[in-house]
Amino acid sequence: MKIHGTHRRTIWLAEDGRGVEIIDQTRLPHELVVIRLDTLEEAERAIKEMWVRGAPLIGAAAAYGVALALRSDASDARLDEACRRLLATRPTAVNLRWALDDMRARLAGLAVSDRLAAAYRRAAEIADEDVTMNAALGGHGAAILAELWKKRKAAGASRLNVLTHCNAGWLATVDWGTALAPVYKADEAGIPLHVWVDETRPRNQGASLTACELNWQGIAHTVIVDNAGGHLMQHGQVDVCIVGTDRTTASGDVCNKIGTYLKALAAHDNGVPFYVGLPGPTIDWTIEDGVRDIPIEERDPSEVTHISGRGPSGERLTVQLTPDGSPAINYGFDVTPARLVTGLITERGVCPASSVGLLSLYPEKRNHV
Amino acid sequence: MKIHGTHRRTIWLAEDGRGVEIIDQTRLPHELVVIRLDTLEEAERAIKEMWVRGAPLIGAAAAYGVALALRSDASDARLDEACRRLLATRPTAVNLRWALDDMRARLAGLAVSDRLAAAYRRAAEIADEDVTMNAALGGHGAAILAELWKKRKAAGASRLNVLTHCNAGWLATVDWGTALAPVYKADEAGIPLHVWVDETRPRNQGASLTACELNWQGIAHTVIVDNAGGHLMQHGQVDVCIVGTDRTTASGDVCNKIGTYLKALAAHDNGVPFYVGLPGPTIDWTIEDGVRDIPIEERDPSEVTHISGRGPSGERLTVQLTPDGSPAINYGFDVTPARLVTGLITERGVCPASSVGLLSLYPEKRNHV
Repeated sequence: MKIHGTHRRTIWLAEDGRGVEIIDQTRLPHELVVIRLDTLEEAERAIKEMWVRGAPLIGAAAAYGVALALRSDASDARLDEACRRLLATRPTAVNLRWALDDMRARLAGLAVSDRLAAAYRRAAEIADEDVTMNAALGGHGAAILAELWKKRKAAGASRLNVLTHCNAGWLATVDWGTALAPVYKADEAGIPLHVWVDETRPRNQGASLTACELNWQGIAHTVIVDNAGGHLMQHGQVDVCIVGTDRTTASGDVCNKIGTYLKALAAHDNGVPFYVGLPGPTIDWTIEDGVRDIPIEERDPSEVTHISGRGPSGERLTVQLTPDGSPAINYGFDVTPARLVTGLITERGVCPASSVGLLSLYPEKRNHV
Repeated sequence: MKIHGTHRRTIWLAEDGRGVEIIDQTRLPHELVVIRLDTLEEAERAIKEMWVRGAPLIGAAAAYGVALALRSDASDARLDEACRRLLATRPTAVNLRWALDDMRARLAGLAVSDRLAAAYRRAAEIADEDVTMNAALGGHGAAILAELWKKRKAAGASRLNVLTHCNAGWLATVDWGTALAPVYKADEAGIPLHVWVDETRPRNQGASLTACELNWQGIAHTVIVDNAGGHLMQHGQVDVCIVGTDRTTASGDVCNKIGTYLKALAAHDNGVPFYVGLPGPTIDWTIEDGVRDIPIEERDPSEVTHISGRGPSGERLTVQLTPDGSPAINYGFDVTPARLVTGLITERGVCPASSVGLLSLYPEKRNHV
């Protein structure tokens, strides 16, 4: 998508064809900083410190991380080490495992001397595949928005109100996004949209990244606290919710940023359709019951007790919100049961959030389940 | 309740018997600052700027505000002006109207020369009545907690987990609190409690005030983001929710801090009891349908786009969270429909959230409805 009119991706090969460049997303929305990664350590750090985040982008960054690791040594031991270390950077995102398994499977069978070039090539393909998938996903989602808009317009509405949680926009992927791809495609198609942006505590990816993207793209939006969505839905101010996911189970349970479940409950209680945008690799075919079986990442409590923003002189400042002596706990994700999800929007089309629904789009997984 | 071992209230008559002293709650949790109010203007400002907040405390502060206003002039015109101006400070809290109507009704019939003394006397009574009511409410709520604890203990639990939203502790009242009065009474009774404290964006009354109170009182607690409660309930980590309310309708709909409705939905979805602590004056007998009929205060968007906390050198700092150019909107409250409320805990006992339930405790209101 665009930044100040110029088309950008979130990760790309540097001009010298060796390093990998990313946007440091922890500096947004106040600063646009590009960082160059040259080593496995730097790739690990970029994922762990959330300079890159969002399940699909983490997958692409991990794939490039393998390529960077092999630059010094493309042995089996090094390949294993790279995959193991990169996998340990974030526990929840299934794309991370998918991308690393894919890289290892393709590289392990090659001669050591062929691995480096193949690693760069495959990482680039993974990035490109993500873009293609998200664009397709966006098209399917935009058709849903077009249908909803037809009804709302007939009822006299002046815009279609979409609510989203966290950032599943293009900054969370290589391009287009997952939850926001339908929004971008619908905007291109001329549907008048307005997006309610949940700020998404504790890391505020909504207030910083989603708002930033929509600003860059010129799409009308309003930032709200995470507490506000239920009230808006009670008062008919939300026509549809679309969120992303870090992992979807084979039965359609959706693991996404903490608080997603609360919005799904409110949508269900108010008859607001609740969609999830997900590319195929986000589906974990090995798990059925998301609440029971998906391990939830517990992050540093300082993300709850402290918050960063732009200070009065433009500098980045961190302030403490809680009294000394009050502990905090910080779960990164929650699981929205399939029963609360209206539909899953994938690169292959839209399906009900169920085993039957998912297998209708991914029949090749029938034996897997 | 206690601050550093000394018993305090949130509002009291100054030693000279003229001024009124309050704790500036916008400075908590990092600083304990007492402010003296001497005029109507100062009382207005204290309520409008949320130096005092919480429905019951706003009522007491408004009553004292009338007394302060009459110091210069106790005429009918001045009494009207004081009530009108104080009523305009906060649109949602029903106690504000109740306290002002009560003051006006009692003072208007008196000779002008008798009004000032009567105003101070009645304001002190309103404050004392609040303390008495909340202590009674706390006793009734503690009985519920004792019952729950008996079951949890039998099941092998080591503590009773209570979740609360916003601050309905003693800082929101004159003393004891509403939602937290049962917690304080249960703690006194020796029940091992742990409180999940929703930070409660945008003003973070949970992270600052509730955490502060529990810290002072030595009750185990953990601060969480508002997004986390659903996840905790899905995993059996919440035994009961207790919140306060700014206004309860005659049918038991509960208007409370924005985001309360989302927690009630999660409690309902997970079979967690959801109680509301409310003193009688918080009931608005003139309204049935809370979602339809309670006007929701819209506050300054800067509370969403910016946040304040303690900077690295101990100073109070405000940082910007959103990008320039992204608008925000800030609804202060939402309404939790009675169907999601397990019970209302009042000074007269506990009842179902319904007209029948409320009238069983307040039979004198039967003709009013």
